[in-house]
Amino acid sequence: MTHAINLQHKFDLFHEQWLPKVIAEMNDYQFKLARLQGEFIWHSHADTDEAFIVIEGCLRIELRDGSVTLNAGEMYVVPKGVEHRPCAAQEVKLLLIEPRGVANTGDQGGERTAANDVWI
Amino acid sequence: MTHAINLQHKFDLFHEQWLPKVIAEMNDYQFKLARLQGEFIWHSHADTDEAFIVIEGCLRIELRDGSVTLNAGEMYVVPKGVEHRPCAAQEVKLLLIEPRGVANTGDQGGERTAANDVWI
Repeated sequence: MTHAINLQHKFDLFHEQWLPKVIAEMNDYQFKLARLQGEFIWHSHADTDEAFIVIEGCLRIELRDGSVTLNAGEMYVVPKGVEHRPCAAQEVKLLLIEPRGVANTGDQGGERTAANDVWI
Repeated sequence: MTHAINLQHKFDLFHEQWLPKVIAEMNDYQFKLARLQGEFIWHSHADTDEAFIVIEGCLRIELRDGSVTLNAGEMYVVPKGVEHRPCAAQEVKLLLIEPRGVANTGDQGGERTAANDVWI
């Protein structure tokens, strides 16, 4: 693959929310795009940090002891083991970076667990 | 740290080119900002892929068998072991993601090797 990956063009290829799509890999890490709106479930990832970069919109990451608000061009890394809940009043477009195989619902599982390793 | 990292605010804190600054870590990976202009040296990283995301401007990554041009909002992952040379006619602002400890000059070393692990 010797062409640039255009994030906006990739976002144009899907419109479903809460279902991250893989767009690239770096070693055993993946870059995933997601559209989120509403409130997710509280969860954590016991074995890994998780990086969020907001491309468009506004994301609030609730933590047990506060929250972090990310606007476009802002990022945050949720440390491993830290419970968090992503929320977005309006749709937010997000770039996630995390190791291959990490489930969106972390340790919680359940009906909101997205299919993993779906490329776009 | 429970606040967002604003990429543009971080760029405003430095103006030197070719000297990546660490802004965040995810496990043993680092997020680094860099300003580049001109031509770098040919090099490769034997042990790791390297991800480039252009925040502002235009970056051309020359490869031995072609090149990739990245505009703002575009990314590319240079596979491990692949020789590459970043070039930018005008200054480009870049987000790099790679394991902690990776030198900007890879296997080549030399005078253009930047101090590593410099946070901003």
